Amino acid sequence: MSSLTTPRIQPDIDFLGIGELLVDFIAEEKGVSLDQVRAFGRYLGGSPANIATNVVRLGGRSALISRVGRDPFGHFLQKKLQADGVLVDFIQVDADAPTSIVFITHAASTPEFFALRGADMNLNRTDISPQLIARSRIIHTSAFALASRSARHAIGFAFELAHQQGKIISLDPNYSPQLWPDREEALQVLSSLYPLVTFTKPSLDDARRLFGEGYSPEEYINRFHKLGAATVVLSMGTEGVLFSDGRVKQHITTHRLPVVDATGAGDAFWAGFLMALLDNYPLKACVQIGQMIAGIKLQQTGPLSQYIDRHQIYSQWTMMEP
Amino acid sequence: MSSLTTPRIQPDIDFLGIGELLVDFIAEEKGVSLDQVRAFGRYLGGSPANIATNVVRLGGRSALISRVGRDPFGHFLQKKLQADGVLVDFIQVDADAPTSIVFITHAASTPEFFALRGADMNLNRTDISPQLIARSRIIHTSAFALASRSARHAIGFAFELAHQQGKIISLDPNYSPQLWPDREEALQVLSSLYPLVTFTKPSLDDARRLFGEGYSPEEYINRFHKLGAATVVLSMGTEGVLFSDGRVKQHITTHRLPVVDATGAGDAFWAGFLMALLDNYPLKACVQIGQMIAGIKLQQTGPLSQYIDRHQIYSQWTMMEP
Repeated sequence: MSSLTTPRIQPDIDFLGIGELLVDFIAEEKGVSLDQVRAFGRYLGGSPANIATNVVRLGGRSALISRVGRDPFGHFLQKKLQADGVLVDFIQVDADAPTSIVFITHAASTPEFFALRGADMNLNRTDISPQLIARSRIIHTSAFALASRSARHAIGFAFELAHQQGKIISLDPNYSPQLWPDREEALQVLSSLYPLVTFTKPSLDDARRLFGEGYSPEEYINRFHKLGAATVVLSMGTEGVLFSDGRVKQHITTHRLPVVDATGAGDAFWAGFLMALLDNYPLKACVQIGQMIAGIKLQQTGPLSQYIDRHQIYSQWTMMEP
Repeated sequence: MSSLTTPRIQPDIDFLGIGELLVDFIAEEKGVSLDQVRAFGRYLGGSPANIATNVVRLGGRSALISRVGRDPFGHFLQKKLQADGVLVDFIQVDADAPTSIVFITHAASTPEFFALRGADMNLNRTDISPQLIARSRIIHTSAFALASRSARHAIGFAFELAHQQGKIISLDPNYSPQLWPDREEALQVLSSLYPLVTFTKPSLDDARRLFGEGYSPEEYINRFHKLGAATVVLSMGTEGVLFSDGRVKQHITTHRLPVVDATGAGDAFWAGFLMALLDNYPLKACVQIGQMIAGIKLQQTGPLSQYIDRHQIYSQWTMMEP
């Protein structure tokens, strides 16, 4: 490719999230089913948005490509992200659909949810800025966003661009039949994107929903590889993390910590993982550093709210290592 | 009409509400704009539903015709109404749309709101049970419901049936340009229904939104009469109530009470008014009894939650009268 058509840009953004951006309404009561919850707290939500703010908490720079509605919640999301230090210039305000919202139970394990999808479903190809992709080191999306046909095409286009430029491409296959009833279609979409993807981070629940119940973690990982995923990082809650580069599988245990709120723990894990990756730590270290960040998140409601000195985390990690 | 085709049924239901049924998410913080509210309490909402539960609180029997979604909030609404003693057999579960929800600020005056309309918009003619109308003494709806074309036709049909049977027909013209941008259409729809309507209960805010700002209460009342309304009961908040049967206008002052939450005060007022009406009190007494019920409601968040002995309210009213 000639340097005339694609001038080399020094990337100044660590993480570019493309996909869902929504308001999470998290139940204020613990262990209550969604039809019985009496009050909900309002939080910034959506996996790419949560990772983006977590990356800023860890001292990185992040941006989002998404859509919100022309309504109070869209306004809240933009203001909140801006206050959190995320680049919001590429978030479009959709005139036709309300801001997406999701109601979630307050649970220690995988919570129950009810989504009202809106503006972020309308993400389209014209929203993808090739300039912004050139400026970014990691491009990330999720299955939640891929459930929308329009968003899917936009993300496919973004991934092609990013792949051509040798970017790190990350995909969270947070598949839910509730949002995407056609599982066969989901598998097809994932298999068409995975050849472009560098890292994918399923949870055990994601894997079960995608491939069916009853397989071993190792078998789930093999299935992701069969879909074309290069490196698979399978998070298994209290059972730790199993990861595989397609040749070797490694298991990392987790420290048991008191859990205040599990929502967003995966996103905190992934932000820690990706930042360590950009800081040139080996894969195993990235997983362990991700676990340390997730451990901080599990002890609070909502996403990480404070600045975290990642170099201090790295020092702690160095001391942990034998 | 022959008694063969419409057998005379002894009405056993005092109030039949037709129209919106939704979840009200009311801000837990006072005086905060919607894009800044951090937590919302979840309440049964929708004017017909609130009046229906208030009627039960006052010892009456009520039913609803509406639609909810096949989701946790639809489930909540049905269970809540059932627990409140409202007949829910005629509430349909819509397979295509989620339960309607509305986010509302916690304000002493007219609150800010953001509505995500769903299932109740799909109310249609087949949902209207002629049997249930025959069993009811009062048939009620609101402009909120009339904003939907499908619901509008269903309600028109219900009002025709009710009118033929000499029922009391009540309409809350709670018009909002946010929900129904075409004001001319709203005026046309109201003028087509008003000839069938016995009582209409605008608030001063409703009147301003419908006819524009800057008129006197008397002028607003005249405009409702011009649209075809027989008896107009204009509620003016702390300024009391002005009502008119088309010949004489009467003003009733209100007692100033500490206001905890204004949402639903109009519905409490109207439930008190309608029950007093069924108990054969004159119009002025109905207004005053309605005000007494609204006074109880204004001192709590959400709709009336306790049983109220309406005959005790009537005794209090008798003592008030000179």
